[in-house]
Amino acid sequence: MINVALFGLGRIGQMHALNILSNKNFNLKYVYDVNSQLVKNFEKKYKIKSIKNEKIAFDDKSIDVIFIASSTSTHIELITKSVLAKKAVFCEKPLDLNLEKVIKCRKQISKFNAKIQLGFNRRYDPGHYALKEKLKAKIGKLKKIIITSRDPSPPPISYMKTSGGIFKDMMIHDFDLARLYLDNDKFEEVTAFGTNFKNSYSSVNDYEIAAVMMKSKKGVICYINNSRECTYGYDQRVEIFGEKGMMISNNERKNSIEINNSSFTSSKEPLKNFFIDRYKDAYALQLNGLKDMVIKGKKPRATFDDGQQALYLAINAYKSLKLKKTIKIS
Amino acid sequence: MINVALFGLGRIGQMHALNILSNKNFNLKYVYDVNSQLVKNFEKKYKIKSIKNEKIAFDDKSIDVIFIASSTSTHIELITKSVLAKKAVFCEKPLDLNLEKVIKCRKQISKFNAKIQLGFNRRYDPGHYALKEKLKAKIGKLKKIIITSRDPSPPPISYMKTSGGIFKDMMIHDFDLARLYLDNDKFEEVTAFGTNFKNSYSSVNDYEIAAVMMKSKKGVICYINNSRECTYGYDQRVEIFGEKGMMISNNERKNSIEINNSSFTSSKEPLKNFFIDRYKDAYALQLNGLKDMVIKGKKPRATFDDGQQALYLAINAYKSLKLKKTIKIS
Amino acid sequence: MINVALFGLGRIGQMHALNILSNKNFNLKYVYDVNSQLVKNFEKKYKIKSIKNEKIAFDDKSIDVIFIASSTSTHIELITKSVLAKKAVFCEKPLDLNLEKVIKCRKQISKFNAKIQLGFNRRYDPGHYALKEKLKAKIGKLKKIIITSRDPSPPPISYMKTSGGIFKDMMIHDFDLARLYLDNDKFEEVTAFGTNFKNSYSSVNDYEIAAVMMKSKKGVICYINNSRECTYGYDQRVEIFGEKGMMISNNERKNSIEINNSSFTSSKEPLKNFFIDRYKDAYALQLNGLKDMVIKGKKPRATFDDGQQALYLAINAYKSLKLKKTIKIS
Amino acid sequence: MINVALFGLGRIGQMHALNILSNKNFNLKYVYDVNSQLVKNFEKKYKIKSIKNEKIAFDDKSIDVIFIASSTSTHIELITKSVLAKKAVFCEKPLDLNLEKVIKCRKQISKFNAKIQLGFNRRYDPGHYALKEKLKAKIGKLKKIIITSRDPSPPPISYMKTSGGIFKDMMIHDFDLARLYLDNDKFEEVTAFGTNFKNSYSSVNDYEIAAVMMKSKKGVICYINNSRECTYGYDQRVEIFGEKGMMISNNERKNSIEINNSSFTSSKEPLKNFFIDRYKDAYALQLNGLKDMVIKGKKPRATFDDGQQALYLAINAYKSLKLKKTIKIS
Repeated sequence: MINVALFGLGRIGQMHALNILSNKNFNLKYVYDVNSQLVKNFEKKYKIKSIKNEKIAFDDKSIDVIFIASSTSTHIELITKSVLAKKAVFCEKPLDLNLEKVIKCRKQISKFNAKIQLGFNRRYDPGHYALKEKLKAKIGKLKKIIITSRDPSPPPISYMKTSGGIFKDMMIHDFDLARLYLDNDKFEEVTAFGTNFKNSYSSVNDYEIAAVMMKSKKGVICYINNSRECTYGYDQRVEIFGEKGMMISNNERKNSIEINNSSFTSSKEPLKNFFIDRYKDAYALQLNGLKDMVIKGKKPRATFDDGQQALYLAINAYKSLKLKKTIKIS
Repeated sequence: MINVALFGLGRIGQMHALNILSNKNFNLKYVYDVNSQLVKNFEKKYKIKSIKNEKIAFDDKSIDVIFIASSTSTHIELITKSVLAKKAVFCEKPLDLNLEKVIKCRKQISKFNAKIQLGFNRRYDPGHYALKEKLKAKIGKLKKIIITSRDPSPPPISYMKTSGGIFKDMMIHDFDLARLYLDNDKFEEVTAFGTNFKNSYSSVNDYEIAAVMMKSKKGVICYINNSRECTYGYDQRVEIFGEKGMMISNNERKNSIEINNSSFTSSKEPLKNFFIDRYKDAYALQLNGLKDMVIKGKKPRATFDDGQQALYLAINAYKSLKLKKTIKIS
Repeated sequence: MINVALFGLGRIGQMHALNILSNKNFNLKYVYDVNSQLVKNFEKKYKIKSIKNEKIAFDDKSIDVIFIASSTSTHIELITKSVLAKKAVFCEKPLDLNLEKVIKCRKQISKFNAKIQLGFNRRYDPGHYALKEKLKAKIGKLKKIIITSRDPSPPPISYMKTSGGIFKDMMIHDFDLARLYLDNDKFEEVTAFGTNFKNSYSSVNDYEIAAVMMKSKKGVICYINNSRECTYGYDQRVEIFGEKGMMISNNERKNSIEINNSSFTSSKEPLKNFFIDRYKDAYALQLNGLKDMVIKGKKPRATFDDGQQALYLAINAYKSLKLKKTIKIS
Repeated sequence: MINVALFGLGRIGQMHALNILSNKNFNLKYVYDVNSQLVKNFEKKYKIKSIKNEKIAFDDKSIDVIFIASSTSTHIELITKSVLAKKAVFCEKPLDLNLEKVIKCRKQISKFNAKIQLGFNRRYDPGHYALKEKLKAKIGKLKKIIITSRDPSPPPISYMKTSGGIFKDMMIHDFDLARLYLDNDKFEEVTAFGTNFKNSYSSVNDYEIAAVMMKSKKGVICYINNSRECTYGYDQRVEIFGEKGMMISNNERKNSIEINNSSFTSSKEPLKNFFIDRYKDAYALQLNGLKDMVIKGKKPRATFDDGQQALYLAINAYKSLKLKKTIKIS
């Protein structure tokens, strides 16, 4: 049984808590959140012990994993402390909004050979990951990647204010996913466009839609398109094109029915509504990845380095948008 | 250039006329219909010579093909006369409503080695026929055939009165199509159900929906389901199942767009509306088959014998429905 | 917490055990099987107490549910004992192979107002059940039902010997599903065909493929086609056709990728392999239905009566096949 | 009857010739090509009169339409002469490789109120154009356009040498199509990437894959991706995303069959092979558009101005690629 201390009981933290509770390999020993009301409610409902400060978890020898789902600004400090306390770490994306902080942390923890898994859920999605597994056999040399990611509706303005913007907060998943397919190659050029059709986004210096085009050292061209609003659900598609063929990881629906009437035919249900539904299987497989990292020392599909590289792309995309030119990245 | 005399300028006759006009291998020399107004209108619009009686066509040595699209009751007599006049024949389905008449005609014309093509358009449909061509390679030994055929709306009551009923008029296409896939096998048992949900069909002794189950000598089970009404268009599907796999010939739409909104996703256009649209390519290929029969002596995909066998199945299906038992056929 | 005693640790019993273990509302208190080795292995792996005879469960006041997944021949006796012991019951299909036994049991337990849920998993499948929920709104008056159920491979000969044959063992699910859509209507005519393409099935007096056509009092025509072998996986489809439109509950795959290459396009993964994968969600929802029956007294989607009616249809289908005629049922 | 003189009997010219021959509204009076062998063969096969120089057509008062399918470098001169001779014009894309020549021609012919239709076939494709027709009703305010266009195989090196490169020769269709959906809006920023995976393209200063991202005045972001090689056929897809939903115009196949076996399910035929097959209906509808322009004075879907604007985008895309920066266009 792997003992876990979970930091952060917001929407994503609560989802992780329920996944941990229903996975037989894990024991959710402590939960912590700065919001004491959230903690109280959770404690009452699930009979899980809450702690008043994080130190208790770091000091408890029985704790195997620090599971970080608190706000982004706390990630780096918690990772550092966890590693110093010899704990394995799961950390939600993004690592931080500031690349220098990430690099500094990396140096600090470099000698510890720490076990850290990043929360890039797409890498555990059965469809998106099947593309990776079949890439060589089915399409041969990779030539293009096209990623579509559209959220059904935007987060609250209050969240967007501190989110770091669409590139660091939302597209970071897609930067990472694109890197997954690239394998031994790397992106060298990035160019970005963004648009607001309403003032609500501009007021927090963010964008409703954003699009990025990147080119890798080997010539692979990648296109990522994000939207904060999408009437038909959570649109999550990946297309990879290569020498021998093309593969698509398509959207998923809650069932497989089709409706035909006088207005239309083969009509399907709306898409799964958002990440908790759409990536349900991915979250469960991610936990198994965490178990394999903790118990067998297996490298997780998403590492600290993946977190850093995705952040680097996000920062350069934003730079491109602001400078209105293609950024050459090293 | 193949010279054609077309008999019958009803809906299907006019469609055939336009196809003949647009096919470079054919010259539509004469048209004939008992309805002189139909003839006048057609003559005026297309500048095609009409004839006052069919004999003119039979006597004209330049005429190569008698194209029979007149009412069912005239088919057998016209076929017989055409053969005696040494003309090649295209004849719409069904051959006749009376099997004895068909058998008698067959005997009469047996020594002439006549060139006769039956109007079973499904045999020329690119999808339905692709199943036939790929059957052995893709599914191996055939085990099941499932045919769905639903008309968007019923013919006028006046037509239904003399149509011979749903089995001889509509399902005859599906009996023939099932036989196409059977190859060297034959149906030995047939059982049929039919239902009227409204009085309009009963009043002409017909059915709104009809379903037939047949079993072949080799054990293939075939299911055919017909409907006279279908809100979403002309539903035309075939499924064949065998030892190595399953194939479906699916419906077609006028374009390939998909619509996604807050109510549904991947919604497609209604189906092609009816046989003139849906089997447009089939009718063109059928004409090419006629050309190959006339010029190269090539056996058409649908023969007089196919017309007779399909009628035999239709008659036994109706018998099964009336006697409420499975009919063993020889 | 609902305390459960599970009888039967075969393939389906073990699957139910794991579902019960992972459902927070249930406590798997006892397991029992006539095969002591199965019990030992299970006890060791999951630390669940096994019992030496069923009586212990019936006598234990803390047991709320007797969960019957043992062989078919034991079902009726166990149901009767459970009801007498005031336990709620879950029972796998079929109730029994003998209709008289079922009717007798029904009489015996009639005064107890027993809570009994039948194991008709299709009723809990999100897709198949969505058709039921949307039927009136989307297709209006029901006219046809077409059910396709093909197993990837047959059970062992040893199992088939005592299974009761394809109608009672396999198609029983489809008889029940057809009844679900019928609502206040009932089937009055049934006709069946069956074929063996190899001797292995005949040797146990069974069929490789079976097809049934039924007609309801209101005129709905239902077609069910079953196969014991299917190369492309577990084919599970339902089509319902009505006055306003048509709906299909389609097959499911383990992910939603599509592959395009020089041989084919939009190629999808093989179907989910068999019932444990395909109806995974259905089994979980079925357990919730059990909980609602036990705790809230809610009628389950599948009742003892549903089990009896489906068996009645299966028996008459077999009779039709043997007598080679349509059976009129009361 | 509209009398046509066709210039150019290369692959696309011959296709147009056959379309004109099979359209009842047109009479193909003259054909002309610099390659006398091509002319001889065509004359022999189709009994169409060839002319030794273009002047004969311009001087013949009975000629209504000059149909220009000759090499790109001849387009502008022929358009000018046709207009001066008071002929209606159909001209294949691109207008020319040199924007100044196009602008000069435009000035020269400006006072003639000439009837000119550009050969942008996508505007006549039933699927792609259905998106345009349904745009407002189905998706409301437009936010994104994603166009995929992949040729099955590259043209001969000899052709590529003078083709003007992938942007002016191939992507010009997509620039025009994107403009079709934009309506009263215009593109203001364009950025392009291109890659060669083999030397054959570099040797003629061209690219195997090219990708362009554009942003319109109103903020619409458009992504176009082209490839000169595609194993699974001629990939032609359009996606438009907006406030109320999303629509896709999907690929087409020669039939609608699906194959299921032990390796894959729902596998479809390869895509229609290339433009002659894929845009067959579009070419026929384009001719009808030509007829409506000539007879009714109706504005064609693709005009001289559309040809000029698409060329302008192509030129700026190439400039972006070469300068490695986003080009702001006026």
